[in-house]
Amino acid sequence: MNFINKLNAAWTANDSLLCVGLDPDMAKLPPQFQQDPNGIFNFCKEIIDATADLACSFKPQIAYFAALSAERQLEDICAYARENYPHIPLILDAKRGDIGATARQYAREAYDRYGADAVTVNPYMGSDSVEPYMEWADRGVIILCRTSNAGGSDLQFLNVDGKPLYQHVARLVAEKWNSNGQCALVVGATFPEELAQVRAIIGDMPLLVPGVGAQGGDVEATVKSGRTANGAGMMINSSRAILYAAQQPGEDFAMAARRVALETRDAINAHRAG
Amino acid sequence: MNFINKLNAAWTANDSLLCVGLDPDMAKLPPQFQQDPNGIFNFCKEIIDATADLACSFKPQIAYFAALSAERQLEDICAYARENYPHIPLILDAKRGDIGATARQYAREAYDRYGADAVTVNPYMGSDSVEPYMEWADRGVIILCRTSNAGGSDLQFLNVDGKPLYQHVARLVAEKWNSNGQCALVVGATFPEELAQVRAIIGDMPLLVPGVGAQGGDVEATVKSGRTANGAGMMINSSRAILYAAQQPGEDFAMAARRVALETRDAINAHRAG
Repeated sequence: MNFINKLNAAWTANDSLLCVGLDPDMAKLPPQFQQDPNGIFNFCKEIIDATADLACSFKPQIAYFAALSAERQLEDICAYARENYPHIPLILDAKRGDIGATARQYAREAYDRYGADAVTVNPYMGSDSVEPYMEWADRGVIILCRTSNAGGSDLQFLNVDGKPLYQHVARLVAEKWNSNGQCALVVGATFPEELAQVRAIIGDMPLLVPGVGAQGGDVEATVKSGRTANGAGMMINSSRAILYAAQQPGEDFAMAARRVALETRDAINAHRAG
Repeated sequence: MNFINKLNAAWTANDSLLCVGLDPDMAKLPPQFQQDPNGIFNFCKEIIDATADLACSFKPQIAYFAALSAERQLEDICAYARENYPHIPLILDAKRGDIGATARQYAREAYDRYGADAVTVNPYMGSDSVEPYMEWADRGVIILCRTSNAGGSDLQFLNVDGKPLYQHVARLVAEKWNSNGQCALVVGATFPEELAQVRAIIGDMPLLVPGVGAQGGDVEATVKSGRTANGAGMMINSSRAILYAAQQPGEDFAMAARRVALETRDAINAHRAG
């Protein structure tokens, strides 16, 4: 089953648009994991087990593993997720951007080494920085379009023929790069009207949407702006709000993560129809 | 000594603008390295030893190591270069692009784990995807501006207020992001007139210039377009033309690499003045 079909199935099976992000920051992990040489794996494994029936995807962020020389633990957590929850798409958040032979190495890293169903990619170097990924016909490529950080506007909001750059990226992907139906886009949740503009350009292409936590006031606007006609089309990511949901020392972090994941999933679902 | 000072010193000490790129493609390595579990390290070590007096920088491309699960060998080759050739800047070509806490993880990876003097970074996510690197005050950030691949024009050549996007990136870096003097830019060698336009915008900021091999017909145009008034300002990269210079089985690959590195350095130097 290819990435898009697997994602569609996961949206339905778990009745969820929630993507659980895995950003294991050593300083924030419960103390038992900080002393454990396999602590990153063990922490992520418990998060995955606690949320797998509530998520439409898992998204490890490779930077957190690379900074700790923990590639082996990332391999292990990816293998664990694939083996135990094969119906949940696994997204490697790596935001790779290079061309030709080098891009092919990054594709091998994401798809063959880590077994990811999809990888995030930066569009700045253009079509031949995306094409090499397409050789893995059953996998997905999730292209940065509009990011919700303060500096996101530096380039993405530049005026190109009367439209902001990010809309050109959305159009390029929808009209050219997505010819095999393997693409999705990253669009942040901060500006719902921009999410709606991108949705209008890209049809039913999936969106990966960071920037919504359990406390986010904009869940309603985000979902209403980004959903497809059938009330899906989005992977709404939450990382830290779920991973570090436990408020007090001694509180069960996995139960707290599950509670926040459930609340977030339900807050999203409240606005998928109608 | 910070990155820019170290680079200036290396330009002078080795009378060279040549950056030796380390892209170890297993299928292209001499057979003795393909069978060696430490073959990537050993191959790169011999290339470094053979070219260290001819280079102004070494640039390992992390994708080639990551695809082969060879991060330990990358750590080792970076440590080897730093210890044996501490006056030659070490550039990690990673083209990272992410924000805030995640960008800081990538900076830790490049600067602390691999000990790189500088790292390549993608500008698409804007200022707060570059700022976290600046906390390492003695290191450099080399930002993608204009790449010479076929798809490079997809975004970089879009018309923003009458100028192509890449010139806005050059201006953003020169006027805003480079306030600490830690930045350099990547500009490909394919279009010398664009190199000249970028040089006119950025003053003496260093350029990393891929796309020139020993056989490249455009060495003259590249150097004349990109050089600073004192005949420096560029790291002109060559990877495969040097690494895989040996033409016949049994030919000494390191001697062949040295020969091509010397030819390339001299071809560049012929056009630095005047």
